[in-house]
Amino acid sequence: MRALLVIADGLGGRPTDWGDATCLARARTVHLDRLAREGALGLMDPIAPGVRPGSDTSHLAIFGYDPAEVYTGRGAFEALGIGLDVRGGDVCFRANFATVKEQDGKLVVHDRRAGRLAEGAQLAEALETVDLGDPEVSFTFRASTEHRGALVLRGPRLSSEVTDTDPHVEGAAVTSCRPLADSAAARRTAKLVNTFSQKAYECLREHPANSMRREEGKPEGNALLLRGAAAMPHLSPVTEQYGVQGLCVAGGALYKGVARAAGLEVLQVDGATGDLKTDLRAKAEAAWRALDKAGFVFVHIKGTDNAAHDGSSLEKTRFIERIDGEFLAVLEERLREGDVVLCFSGDHTTPPAVGEHTADPVPALFWGPPVRPDGAAGFDETAAGTGGLGRFSGRLVPQLLGYCDLGGKFGA
Amino acid sequence: MRALLVIADGLGGRPTDWGDATCLARARTVHLDRLAREGALGLMDPIAPGVRPGSDTSHLAIFGYDPAEVYTGRGAFEALGIGLDVRGGDVCFRANFATVKEQDGKLVVHDRRAGRLAEGAQLAEALETVDLGDPEVSFTFRASTEHRGALVLRGPRLSSEVTDTDPHVEGAAVTSCRPLADSAAARRTAKLVNTFSQKAYECLREHPANSMRREEGKPEGNALLLRGAAAMPHLSPVTEQYGVQGLCVAGGALYKGVARAAGLEVLQVDGATGDLKTDLRAKAEAAWRALDKAGFVFVHIKGTDNAAHDGSSLEKTRFIERIDGEFLAVLEERLREGDVVLCFSGDHTTPPAVGEHTADPVPALFWGPPVRPDGAAGFDETAAGTGGLGRFSGRLVPQLLGYCDLGGKFGA
Repeated sequence: MRALLVIADGLGGRPTDWGDATCLARARTVHLDRLAREGALGLMDPIAPGVRPGSDTSHLAIFGYDPAEVYTGRGAFEALGIGLDVRGGDVCFRANFATVKEQDGKLVVHDRRAGRLAEGAQLAEALETVDLGDPEVSFTFRASTEHRGALVLRGPRLSSEVTDTDPHVEGAAVTSCRPLADSAAARRTAKLVNTFSQKAYECLREHPANSMRREEGKPEGNALLLRGAAAMPHLSPVTEQYGVQGLCVAGGALYKGVARAAGLEVLQVDGATGDLKTDLRAKAEAAWRALDKAGFVFVHIKGTDNAAHDGSSLEKTRFIERIDGEFLAVLEERLREGDVVLCFSGDHTTPPAVGEHTADPVPALFWGPPVRPDGAAGFDETAAGTGGLGRFSGRLVPQLLGYCDLGGKFGA
Repeated sequence: MRALLVIADGLGGRPTDWGDATCLARARTVHLDRLAREGALGLMDPIAPGVRPGSDTSHLAIFGYDPAEVYTGRGAFEALGIGLDVRGGDVCFRANFATVKEQDGKLVVHDRRAGRLAEGAQLAEALETVDLGDPEVSFTFRASTEHRGALVLRGPRLSSEVTDTDPHVEGAAVTSCRPLADSAAARRTAKLVNTFSQKAYECLREHPANSMRREEGKPEGNALLLRGAAAMPHLSPVTEQYGVQGLCVAGGALYKGVARAAGLEVLQVDGATGDLKTDLRAKAEAAWRALDKAGFVFVHIKGTDNAAHDGSSLEKTRFIERIDGEFLAVLEERLREGDVVLCFSGDHTTPPAVGEHTADPVPALFWGPPVRPDGAAGFDETAAGTGGLGRFSGRLVPQLLGYCDLGGKFGA
């Protein structure tokens, strides 16, 4: 048996503003409903009843990790989220390009966001020449949107117990990074951060993009402010836990990052954009090919959440119909070859009327030869609430791989 | 959205002695059934499947705390329960008035319950003059029923790691309180307890109520035996966690105490007696007014449990009908203004045939604009067992405040 997990981000909903049905209930989903009639439904609290999940914590929980134990804060997962390669033990920082001026020998912050500049990628490229002066430690920096970015330090004996360099207010000087623990690792990390900050400033202030901004009267991005140091947890890869090869088809960087952290290999799929314009047929075809290669395939589809964050029930409903008509329609023939167990669910509820993740539980469908059918009439929140799999917290992947008889016994 | 939590104590039941229906199923509950048809039901294990909850631990779990982590024993919550103001860090003891006699320079216990005396309140009043001899530490003592009471010590550097002064057998001497940990706090607390015990004896032996009892040939309440030292946990107030004002309408001291510990303000409601004679209309009106002021209102109704402890199925059934006809009937108009999410449940099951809390799960109803209706026909244990919210452990408050979109995300 092979396992296929499909997460439609923010799939769960509430009664909509135009009636009693949720987007999922309202959407015409021929394939999904047929699979539901042959499978079994349940209701998942991604983390626990009443907890509003982030996308990072919910995916950790879905993969069987305990977010309360392994989640180290936004720093590490944001770095994953913008596509940096982050490994267990790496120390990650959220970063801002900022405008600083030298005053009385200090670097005083004039604009914490450097006028929300657009040249982050160019500036980041120049930072590659920075030398930390420690052959054991390497870094990667990547710019994301506007003034935002992330820094990852990798090497032995590093610690996340260090202060921010971001003074968090304008008019104050860039703070020197200080150790927050009495350890050699914290002292070493603080020193490396200060070296990086100083050299980044020396490199950025001379950058042609900043000369241009100066000429145009715009605030320069001549310094980096770092905050929220977080160590990437060492996750025990699910692929190792279950002795299975894992492949991931996703557009969004965060989901690729969590998949990588869980031991999956991320496939490059042209047209998988992680938004409403994504090529769902291309993702279906990639998943089909992946199922011929690996025992566990994870597909992440982001558009449902995007539509809901935009507040559009209509858009969310249509996108669910596209998942049915362009993704499941293509894959159904492969599913029916008899060697696949499917889990189709979301990572949290995002009602368009709220435009944010909410704590409501999420419908989940399990389908395949080993799954006991529960007589569901179709797939939506209400059917899932009375489904044969009851209500449970996270752990879709362990359940799915369990149906595939992968993984060892706990006990004898 | 505003949140209304109504807990009918001991609501859950079993098939009764006079038929197959539970009290809740047998009760005519027009309003509750209508709300159930429009809402969604689930089955709650207050703490975990198969755990018989106390009222204190179940309420902690309902508010989202983990009793295994924060419950420090009956001492602290009994002190809350008899109406003492107990704060995080206070050290609490359960206390007995006892009859002691001086023999060979020792105080020997002749009656651990002082003949279950009725003069506890008078004796307690006299104890107010006791001086602990430490300006940093204050105490409060309150008598409850018969010979029972509770002592609360408040001040810096106190510890619950001290022994009982209660020898637990008659004929033995009152035990000197000893530290159970090698800490200055434990030594200090033991010394304070011994000072209190000695001064309490000096104060009680001369008390007119004891002179009277002596004349009547009744055992005197001339000493206090202390046991079960417990530190009140520092709970992170749910009102702070969710950024919401909380108001409580309750008769029973324990429920007011837990509510206060969770950050709620307790309203004074005339007629809210915490028993079968309570004025349910007055509580409904107080809840109505509270909903106009605060984002979270908690109403506790005790009578269901009292009737069940008395072993009366008929009484319990009638009290459930009173909750429907005198409480929900009054509030329903307010609920239908469209800005309230209701959770109606119990804190545990108390079958009249057992007369005690049992481990059976408890029906729960969620109702309001964001709640996905599950097609329930009415509200009882059987309907709840097949309800759309499945089965979950405690956490009614996080789920309720989650429906109201209060509280931050865990993760990003």
